[in-house]
Order: sequence, then structure tokens, then C-alpha cells
Amino acid sequence: MTTPAPFKPPHRILLGPGPSNAAPSVLNALAQPLVGHLDPSFIRMMEEIKQMLRAVFQTKNQMTFPVSGTGSAGMEFCIVNLIEPGDEVIIAINGVFGTRMADVAERCGARVTRVEAPWGQVISPAQIQDALLKTPDAKLVGVVHAETSTGVENPVAEIGRLVKSSGALFLIDTVTSLGGCPVKIDEWSVDAAYSGTQKCLSCPPGLSPVTLSERAMEAARNRKTRVQSWYLDVNLLAGYWGSERVYHHTAPISMNYALHAALREVLEEGLENRWRRHRQNHLALKSGLAAIKIPLASAEGFQLWQLNAVKVPDGVDEAAIRTKLLSDFNIEVGAGLGSLKGKIWRVGLMGESSSRENVRLFLSALCQCLNESGAQVNAAAALAAA
Amino acid sequence: MTTPAPFKPPHRILLGPGPSNAAPSVLNALAQPLVGHLDPSFIRMMEEIKQMLRAVFQTKNQMTFPVSGTGSAGMEFCIVNLIEPGDEVIIAINGVFGTRMADVAERCGARVTRVEAPWGQVISPAQIQDALLKTPDAKLVGVVHAETSTGVENPVAEIGRLVKSSGALFLIDTVTSLGGCPVKIDEWSVDAAYSGTQKCLSCPPGLSPVTLSERAMEAARNRKTRVQSWYLDVNLLAGYWGSERVYHHTAPISMNYALHAALREVLEEGLENRWRRHRQNHLALKSGLAAIKIPLASAEGFQLWQLNAVKVPDGVDEAAIRTKLLSDFNIEVGAGLGSLKGKIWRVGLMGESSSRENVRLFLSALCQCLNESGAQVNAAAALAAA
Repeated sequence: MTTPAPFKPPHRILLGPGPSNAAPSVLNALAQPLVGHLDPSFIRMMEEIKQMLRAVFQTKNQMTFPVSGTGSAGMEFCIVNLIEPGDEVIIAINGVFGTRMADVAERCGARVTRVEAPWGQVISPAQIQDALLKTPDAKLVGVVHAETSTGVENPVAEIGRLVKSSGALFLIDTVTSLGGCPVKIDEWSVDAAYSGTQKCLSCPPGLSPVTLSERAMEAARNRKTRVQSWYLDVNLLAGYWGSERVYHHTAPISMNYALHAALREVLEEGLENRWRRHRQNHLALKSGLAAIKIPLASAEGFQLWQLNAVKVPDGVDEAAIRTKLLSDFNIEVGAGLGSLKGKIWRVGLMGESSSRENVRLFLSALCQCLNESGAQVNAAAALAAA
Repeated sequence: MTTPAPFKPPHRILLGPGPSNAAPSVLNALAQPLVGHLDPSFIRMMEEIKQMLRAVFQTKNQMTFPVSGTGSAGMEFCIVNLIEPGDEVIIAINGVFGTRMADVAERCGARVTRVEAPWGQVISPAQIQDALLKTPDAKLVGVVHAETSTGVENPVAEIGRLVKSSGALFLIDTVTSLGGCPVKIDEWSVDAAYSGTQKCLSCPPGLSPVTLSERAMEAARNRKTRVQSWYLDVNLLAGYWGSERVYHHTAPISMNYALHAALREVLEEGLENRWRRHRQNHLALKSGLAAIKIPLASAEGFQLWQLNAVKVPDGVDEAAIRTKLLSDFNIEVGAGLGSLKGKIWRVGLMGESSSRENVRLFLSALCQCLNESGAQVNAAAALAAA
């Protein structure tokens, strides 16, 4: 075959559902020379990653580390370790990622009770309470904290209190929330959580930070059956990421360099400052859109700061505008998924991508695309309001 | 917490069982700015990766792509998709990675027949023939091509002929072989193979190139039960890596940049040239070691070019020498695993790390370490013979 030319990626402004843009320090870290995964220097760095992840997850959990796969691998890691065939679980579903969680649990042999809300709405604590009453033997309750498919934040702090008093394990998906809004694992009585690197941590995709409480570890240690995944078996991974350093797999060296650099950026900025920045830019975007009469599709009061479900105006071709934003302005935004396909744009303001400049670039480009497509919007008003 | 300092990895000469050193073009590719995983430019690059992987695997298999995890995830990918509970499988075991394959198959509910040989020896085609006669319903036969734990190459071409006439599926582990010695998927009638990026492809760890034949895909499509892993379900991954681009997970963008660059290096050098280079440097190392009376521990005639099991001389402290090679000479070599612990050093000459210079640096450093520890070896003789 003819060898293809070297790949030169275009320079994009990444305002989709992830990946977000990475800081120069993160890209630079990726290009550092390789060391072995058992090199003393790498092992020290792994310890620093674990410490920094604990700070970002706001937890003391010993078992806090990056799974060597993407966010979906982290989801599967939590579920395969905690669920055995026949276990009762309750999964909250108000978007793609809740649906996926139920699918993964069923593949582990779980008997799943689905607690549902329409896409764009939240799961209420009362719904979970009701399900817990009807399923007193539930071993685990799973909720997506930030539903990336709809831009909604589920009330996990309140739900955590209910799950705790029921005695079930509490699992949350923090793929899109971690680093962009408060995530408080210990305070919220969360037993298991997974995230992704490519959202508000602004690291390339490829690793999934996870954390398991001591109760969750106990459940994993005291299983009657073997974990069905060898790759994700926490009993083996604890030996590799723990003090014994028992060989399991070869950790992705360069990706861990990148995660180390990205976590440094998060902590140097400070969690509170970072959350505030995400909130401010979300509010600026929302105000700018309101000035041109474009609302968000997600429930008021539960809108994510980092992922905005922007309603496509009537008569506007969703895909055409999205394609034009990419081709003419190098701006990536996401399409709607499932029942929201064609109805929303998913505009991410995550990590490095969450900036006042990007809000203004997006609004000005969107207005131009809409006007060129025949709509009549006032770009000046949108920018003045942002 | 106090934010740790930026991580500055030491510059190592990586002569262990992987990772190997990466070419500058590969490190440079990692540092390129991110694009979205559904960006048209990324999708074109994914196609080029698939084409290049087919060339390197020597296959026409449509389903040839990098799994978003390390080599062990690739092993699990092949097995979870092809095996259903109760299936009979035959696994060849003459080292760590054959043992692991059997473990993964059992976690899928397989009934495993183990065909064993002592570590350092090969599995003979006659052993497989015998097992096939005793297990006529075997659905799959799994063999590690290059056993990284012992430095032995199993005769997969001959075994492939036997498996083909039995009607079973043939699975091989090419983690350490791919790019360093002939791997001929179609010619050898292989139905499923997985590899790693960090060995003879000289890309950082984090992806697992895999290939499935049409027969294997048929087996996966016609399952009676669902694939137990959502993350590794080929029926979902075929939609993501196929022409439909159905969202499944977010591919590790930067790692795919790196793999693209690494595959370009392989094809620009040419497979035959690359294999010859690996062979020459292996022979040089072996000659140099023979001059100081240090033999390889693996069976003569089946020794891998890319991974040399070097016998630790009597009375020499294996770990002390290995630690000194790293601390004083920045040279990483691997320890023995399992029953070979303390008895061998695993010296990898893989990908970029397989060079005449590295053979000479290793031999000179090893001689110095041995002499300083009280042994008497002739460094000049070793270097003259290499």
C-alpha cells in the first residue's frame, strides 16, 4: 500500500460534548520521552496522580486511580466489580448515559429497576425514594450526575442521603461533571464514581478516573463469583495501583503524563475558581442566546454549566448549521442524540474550552450562520448580552 | 494539597518487555492539538489507521482496528466476543500470557482444555492435534505467538493448518510479535488476533490493534447470548469504526495520532526490512552474550528476535544488576515472571529500541555491572562478538 501522509489535524475550537481543548502544558507532557510502567519515576508519578484525583473528587478513598480506558470503561469497571448475577439494582434514566448504565448492569446479570424521567428533565429524589421502597433489597443505585446528552444535572446530593439510609451502594457518573462543577464524593456518600479525562479536566480521551469507597471495595472483595472482566477486575488492579505493584497490564504511559499535567492545571486554578469560571461562561452564553430568543432545552434550575442543550429554532436545519460552524469557523459543537436528534445543539464549555472568548466566538459565528441561512437574528444584541 | 511539580521523565533506553522507545515523529504526533472524535479529519485518519493495520497484520479482514485499551483489553475483546458460556476452548500455555488467556476465557464461561509446555519450551503442533482429537467440539483454539514472559515463539503457522481443518476458530496473541517478526493473519488462517502498540510498533501503550476474520464476525453476530462487555462488544464497535460512525465511546484521539505516525514508520521502513533488523540485532546480542558464556533460557530454534530471555549467571543477584543498569546507565530491562523470577533478565529489542547501538550499550553496561559485582567477564570479547 502507499503510506498515507503524516496527519496534520486542523486547529479546532472544541465546543462539543468532548473532547475539550487541552492546555499547552498537557500537549507538551504527551510528547515527553517514554519510561517503563514499573520505572521508579513513573511509580512516583502514579502516586501523585492518585493524590490529585482524590483532591479533585473530594474524597479520602484509597482506591482512586485512572482506569486504562475511556469513560465507558470506567462505567463498566464500577459495575462489573460491584454487581453479581441476580443482584437487584436501581438505575435512574433521563438520557443516553443512564440508558447505557442499565445496559451494562444487565450484561452483568443484574435485575434492573428503571427510574425514568423525560429527556431534559431531572430525576427527583422522590422517585428514587419510591423505587427504594419497592426494591428493599437493592444492592446499588446508579445515577448520572451530569447527563451529557441533555445538559441536565441530577440532584445527586439529595439522592445520596436517601441511598445511604437504605444501605445500598451509591454509584454516580461524573464523566462530564468532574472539574466543571462541584463533585463531592465523601460529602454525598458516594460509593463508586467514574469520570473521563476529555471533558472538564481538559486532557485527551483515553483514561477514566474512578474512585471506590471502602464499602464498595468490601463488596468487590467479598463477591461469591469472579469479576467477569479480567481487564477491569479491581482485585487485580488494586495490586497494580497499590503498594505491591504486581504486574497486571501496561499502563498507558503518555496518557498518564497528560493526566498528571491536566490535574496540575485544575489544582493550580483551584476547584472553586474553576467551578465559578464554568458557571460564568454558561450564564454568559445563556444570556447571549436569550437575546436572540434561543432558549436552552434543559430544565431551568438544573442546567449544566459545562454542557448547554441549545434549542434549534423552528425551521432551521440543525445539521447544516453545525457543519458550517465547523467548516467556516473551525468551531465544533455536538448534535442531539436519541429523541433530541435534530432538535438541539450540544454546546460544551468544558475545561480549557470554557472561556469568555469562546462564548463570543460561538455566538458571533452562530448568528452569522443563522442569518446566512435566512433566519433574522441580531448578533450585536447577542454579543452585548453575553 | 500542595500541587506536585511538573513531571519530567528521565531519558531511558527501553530494553525491557515494553514499552519500547518511540520515534520522534510519534512523540510529536502526540502533541498535536485535539480534534473531535467525529471530526471529518479524524474519521479520515481512522480509515488510514485501519488500512495500515491491515498491511501490518497481512490481512484483508474488514474488522481491523485499534481497541481503546491496552493489549490485555484486546485479548479480552477477542475472547468476550467469540466465546459464550459452555463453549469448549483449547488454550496453549507455556508462559504468563497463555495462562492469562485461559483465565479470561473461563471468566466468559468457557470450558477450557489446557495444552501445556514448560516455560521456555514451545507448544508443539502434535499437542494441539491431540487436544483437537479429544475435544472435537472445540469452538476456538488460542495460542500466544510470541510469549513475552519466556522469549519463545510458538509455531502458529503449523498450528493454524491443524485448527483450520478442525473447523475451530484460531486466536493468536501477537502483542510482542507484530512489527518485529512475520505475522501473516490470512496466510496462517488466523480468525482473531490482538496486539499492543508499545512493543515492536514503538508507539506508547494505550491501544490494542485487533483483527477479526469474516468467520469470527459471523460467530460474534450469531451469538445466542449478549456479549458480557458493553465496552468491547464488536457488534457496537463495528458501527463506530464502520461507515455509519454510530457513537459508542470517545476514541482516544492523541493515542490514535501516535498510532498513525508509528504505523507510517513501520511501513516506510518496510516489513521485511524491519523483521531483518530485529533478527540481526537479536543475533548480535546472542553472540555477544555467548562470548561471555551467558546463554539464552529459551528453546534454541524458537527464540524471539524481539525479546531475549537472558540467563542470570550462577551466583549473580538478578535484581541488583537490573537496578544498577537503570540507575547507572539509564537502561531498562525486565525481570523474569512466575517460575522464571530471579533466573532471567528479559531484554527487549523492539521497534525503535532494536538497534546495534543499543545492543552494544547493553552489553558494555552489563559487563561492567557484572564485573563490579565480583563476576569476571570479558567486555571486549562480548563487544567484538556482537
